[in-house]
Amino acid sequence: MTSKSADAPDPRPAVTGNGPAVSRREFDALFEAVRTWGRWTPADRGAWNRVTADHVRRAAAGVRSGVVVPLALPWNTRPGPDNRRPALHHMTDLGDAEHDAESREPSAHKDFIGADYHGKAVTHLDALCHIAYRGRLYDGRAAGDVVGAAGARFGAVSALGPLVTRGVLLDLPAVLGVRWLEPGRAVHAQDVTAAERALGVTIGAGDAVLLRSGQVRRRTEVGAWDPDTASAGFHVDAVPLLAERGVVLLGGDGDNDVRPSPVEGVHSPVHALALAAMGVPLLDNLDLEALSVAAAEAGRYDFLLVVAPLKVPGGTGSPVNPVAVL
Amino acid sequence: MTSKSADAPDPRPAVTGNGPAVSRREFDALFEAVRTWGRWTPADRGAWNRVTADHVRRAAAGVRSGVVVPLALPWNTRPGPDNRRPALHHMTDLGDAEHDAESREPSAHKDFIGADYHGKAVTHLDALCHIAYRGRLYDGRAAGDVVGAAGARFGAVSALGPLVTRGVLLDLPAVLGVRWLEPGRAVHAQDVTAAERALGVTIGAGDAVLLRSGQVRRRTEVGAWDPDTASAGFHVDAVPLLAERGVVLLGGDGDNDVRPSPVEGVHSPVHALALAAMGVPLLDNLDLEALSVAAAEAGRYDFLLVVAPLKVPGGTGSPVNPVAVL
Amino acid sequence: MTSKSADAPDPRPAVTGNGPAVSRREFDALFEAVRTWGRWTPADRGAWNRVTADHVRRAAAGVRSGVVVPLALPWNTRPGPDNRRPALHHMTDLGDAEHDAESREPSAHKDFIGADYHGKAVTHLDALCHIAYRGRLYDGRAAGDVVGAAGARFGAVSALGPLVTRGVLLDLPAVLGVRWLEPGRAVHAQDVTAAERALGVTIGAGDAVLLRSGQVRRRTEVGAWDPDTASAGFHVDAVPLLAERGVVLLGGDGDNDVRPSPVEGVHSPVHALALAAMGVPLLDNLDLEALSVAAAEAGRYDFLLVVAPLKVPGGTGSPVNPVAVL
Amino acid sequence: MTSKSADAPDPRPAVTGNGPAVSRREFDALFEAVRTWGRWTPADRGAWNRVTADHVRRAAAGVRSGVVVPLALPWNTRPGPDNRRPALHHMTDLGDAEHDAESREPSAHKDFIGADYHGKAVTHLDALCHIAYRGRLYDGRAAGDVVGAAGARFGAVSALGPLVTRGVLLDLPAVLGVRWLEPGRAVHAQDVTAAERALGVTIGAGDAVLLRSGQVRRRTEVGAWDPDTASAGFHVDAVPLLAERGVVLLGGDGDNDVRPSPVEGVHSPVHALALAAMGVPLLDNLDLEALSVAAAEAGRYDFLLVVAPLKVPGGTGSPVNPVAVL
Repeated sequence: MTSKSADAPDPRPAVTGNGPAVSRREFDALFEAVRTWGRWTPADRGAWNRVTADHVRRAAAGVRSGVVVPLALPWNTRPGPDNRRPALHHMTDLGDAEHDAESREPSAHKDFIGADYHGKAVTHLDALCHIAYRGRLYDGRAAGDVVGAAGARFGAVSALGPLVTRGVLLDLPAVLGVRWLEPGRAVHAQDVTAAERALGVTIGAGDAVLLRSGQVRRRTEVGAWDPDTASAGFHVDAVPLLAERGVVLLGGDGDNDVRPSPVEGVHSPVHALALAAMGVPLLDNLDLEALSVAAAEAGRYDFLLVVAPLKVPGGTGSPVNPVAVL
Repeated sequence: MTSKSADAPDPRPAVTGNGPAVSRREFDALFEAVRTWGRWTPADRGAWNRVTADHVRRAAAGVRSGVVVPLALPWNTRPGPDNRRPALHHMTDLGDAEHDAESREPSAHKDFIGADYHGKAVTHLDALCHIAYRGRLYDGRAAGDVVGAAGARFGAVSALGPLVTRGVLLDLPAVLGVRWLEPGRAVHAQDVTAAERALGVTIGAGDAVLLRSGQVRRRTEVGAWDPDTASAGFHVDAVPLLAERGVVLLGGDGDNDVRPSPVEGVHSPVHALALAAMGVPLLDNLDLEALSVAAAEAGRYDFLLVVAPLKVPGGTGSPVNPVAVL
Repeated sequence: MTSKSADAPDPRPAVTGNGPAVSRREFDALFEAVRTWGRWTPADRGAWNRVTADHVRRAAAGVRSGVVVPLALPWNTRPGPDNRRPALHHMTDLGDAEHDAESREPSAHKDFIGADYHGKAVTHLDALCHIAYRGRLYDGRAAGDVVGAAGARFGAVSALGPLVTRGVLLDLPAVLGVRWLEPGRAVHAQDVTAAERALGVTIGAGDAVLLRSGQVRRRTEVGAWDPDTASAGFHVDAVPLLAERGVVLLGGDGDNDVRPSPVEGVHSPVHALALAAMGVPLLDNLDLEALSVAAAEAGRYDFLLVVAPLKVPGGTGSPVNPVAVL
Repeated sequence: MTSKSADAPDPRPAVTGNGPAVSRREFDALFEAVRTWGRWTPADRGAWNRVTADHVRRAAAGVRSGVVVPLALPWNTRPGPDNRRPALHHMTDLGDAEHDAESREPSAHKDFIGADYHGKAVTHLDALCHIAYRGRLYDGRAAGDVVGAAGARFGAVSALGPLVTRGVLLDLPAVLGVRWLEPGRAVHAQDVTAAERALGVTIGAGDAVLLRSGQVRRRTEVGAWDPDTASAGFHVDAVPLLAERGVVLLGGDGDNDVRPSPVEGVHSPVHALALAAMGVPLLDNLDLEALSVAAAEAGRYDFLLVVAPLKVPGGTGSPVNPVAVL
């Protein structure tokens, strides 16, 4: 049965609240305002250059309870409205493969994993080369010059390395007393500052900001929908505040952009601002449900965050399982 | 030209020093001696159950310099004697894909990665279901009952989650004043205790032990060889000491087993003991070169270690980029 | 917009006409009745052993117009209700890859294709090892003994090789004067004989029988649905006639089985009878629309058919593009 | 043991006989001389437009013995000097997958195949978009305009469809009384005409020409080598004759180009002439050993040839298993 009773919630959301609308001209001014091209060396680590050994030390020193919370969704091999390019998982040895050696012990089980991981289903990090605006990657590099079928020669995930810094959870449903933000709900600068006040945390230089909209919970309770049609996420008007605070990573249980996009002619404006203007990598499709519970129990919304992308030379990002330590 | 001058070192090593030989009966007695079946709940996290919040806190509190060192080799798509199943890396969008939305900005670059990651080329974690000895996984589960084409229902990497604990680097070449251990050189219990003394560190309960043989340096300087033919790694006689100390993870720049195997009829005896008897996951094919330098500079061989496998339901392990923080 | 107006046809069909119901006991008797175990050498070519050089000669001699009709659907990378494991198509060289030689001319474009091709979206051949009934492959081989993670040692597609023989198109919609058979409509022995009469063709020994239900046209005109829920195809009561006639291949624009299955406890009874009992490979998911037009124009429903599976050692089948020559 | 005794033949060949050298200017003149841009509609079927229904009829009518010979190498998943991007073959269901239906019978075995099939290991067809010379595909299309990460919009394999025509085997080792042509041996126009005389066959308009160098036999008997370093194949001086005769397909047990290339600054000159100038697709890496035996037994070197590429929209070619019928 694919039909639902009249009383069941429809997973396809009605969109409201993704505005206000932003003209292309306003967006371009915003892009200029937050742009940090020429600021960092090496340029393709972008804002991660801001994370000094001192930040790392302080983030580690902030560990209190020792509770470890992984933030990845399960590897998802089933297609759906939010999984158009399902990941692969193939068992390649079930202990029965011929072994080169004479001995058969121990037997080994092996598997192949594969993913075209950008999209809405795999928890992943976007490297700086993932997005170009008007043909330019971060730091002004022409995408056509540095990205080809063999990968990216600038802004690759292999240039980023891992991130160890303080993370801050903006748990909007907790702040607002709702189960989740409705898909299409934009998160504005005032939502960020309200969350800081309500959660007792202040975003500072070097921090990774993780936005919980509750959409993983919504998916579990209501069902899957097409997040390109409607997702809660940042409105571009929140970005100047985040830039001013010196954040180095934006992450979320969505892909960080409110959808539909409020910006004329730009389908992923927060991606463009963060990656191409500011050199700030993104974490898409996190599972922040357990972190929400753990943060509430601990009464604190900051933690040690470790993001360890696979070292893929020329890669545009990586599937990851970020780890929060409270 | 593929030939080499007579003076150039031959990457194919002559094997000596992998002994003493161990009979199958002796091995089975060893297996019994270190076996911890029935000890942990949940069983498929094995020895990782030993890592309490207190271990995590102490490991984090041990961070001094804030230096972050990633431990993964680059994703390797080229076949070679040490890479029989090369990884895949395909660019799937070069900013020219048709977009569902009307707008074309920003443009996106995307890629597909895939790997049959067990073997000698990809830095990866072995989950408990990877290895069965005499048909039994850790905790005595019959492999035939719980592992099939759809994955493992016991001992999967998704049951492990991430590890945050203290890591200890056994930098054997530094201890011995050599560039690397020759492939085939066994590492014994007395090597471990000698390294502890020389490096000023003591392995304790909950620790992850990383063995540097220097083979990544050898590969760089001399060339690739078939590690199944000859690798430096642990002799099984080192395992009781490691078991006694309560280690929770063994890792190395090889695959942890000295090769050729000194054990009659068992091609990977350390794998069998660690995974199947002790419930201790393994990290294979680390790049420990940078960590060796950083540890020497810092004058300390322990650190915060974070291992964050991808959450693949039923998976036998995961490519990873472990992170050491000194 | 995903909703449809009230007047638009719903791609999800209402099922009628898949019966009569068949008990498991009746099915097992049928299995015995058409079983040819022990009859052919080599056994894993099954019924294809029946195609002698004489059949090939006569099939070639039957070519009249020289019209060539390919029968494959396009390689389908988009998930849908009839495509749960979408195929992969990645461009791996866009003329910009580094070339080992000094010269850069000519430039080359390359691609990777991949597919878990069984299912409802890829035109493919089922080899004899694809299906086991009560644990037995064709010729009585125990599936557990001969099929493992490394592939099949009996009944693999590599043992089949290509088929060159006479094909017969049973164009049921043409016979019945309808656009297509409704999904769920069973094709019975009397439909086969009625089609023979109407189309002026008689199925004989060594023939490949292709059943057109028109479902490719329905998909184009109405939209995709889940063929596991409802497909037109053979009822098991048609199989004894086909066996008696000595057919060597069954193909269709569906997967040959009417669905839902009319047989108690057997989800794919025609697969079981054809592959496991009779040693008759299957062609699933053909596009027979152009052949229907060409056959009507030519006024004949038999033709030279060439099926050339990829030579995958141990493979369970192969994507194919069968060719009809009228 | 990887070393060989002094008496064993070294699979790495010494190259002689790939000349005479050809200047870039001479090559460009040759390109102009055989160029057929603007001649065919649809352009991206190129020379296959030459194959009329009459050719098909005559090719089918030429079948005498009914012997069927497949021409594909086995799907090769092992890396080697001639297999840098090994194909994938993963079993994805071993009869144990959970089935949506209630019934468990029959059980099914399934597999995934994947390949970056251009190269030297997979038998495949090159479509016209595979090769650009000076940035131009066949018919003068700018490669940069029509080929991107989503595939080719001109010259794709999906535009070719299948080929049914007369094939001619140029069995050079049979003509010359040798086991194989040494790698690096160029095949010239006079070799082609000498083979025609010796084998009693004349290449004509619409024919597919298959060149046997015997390198598959050499690989079996001597071992694998890097075919980019040395392969027997056509010298460009043979191409005008083939163009004059109106051939529609060139195939071989190598990749059709003699290597090293005799042409200054052009690594694959026969590819450039055939695909980009003449619109003649190529078949690379055929196994012509069985066809050589069958042709000798039949005393004839022409046959019905069927090539049925997978219908991959935008694809640059396809793995194939061409079929000869004598």
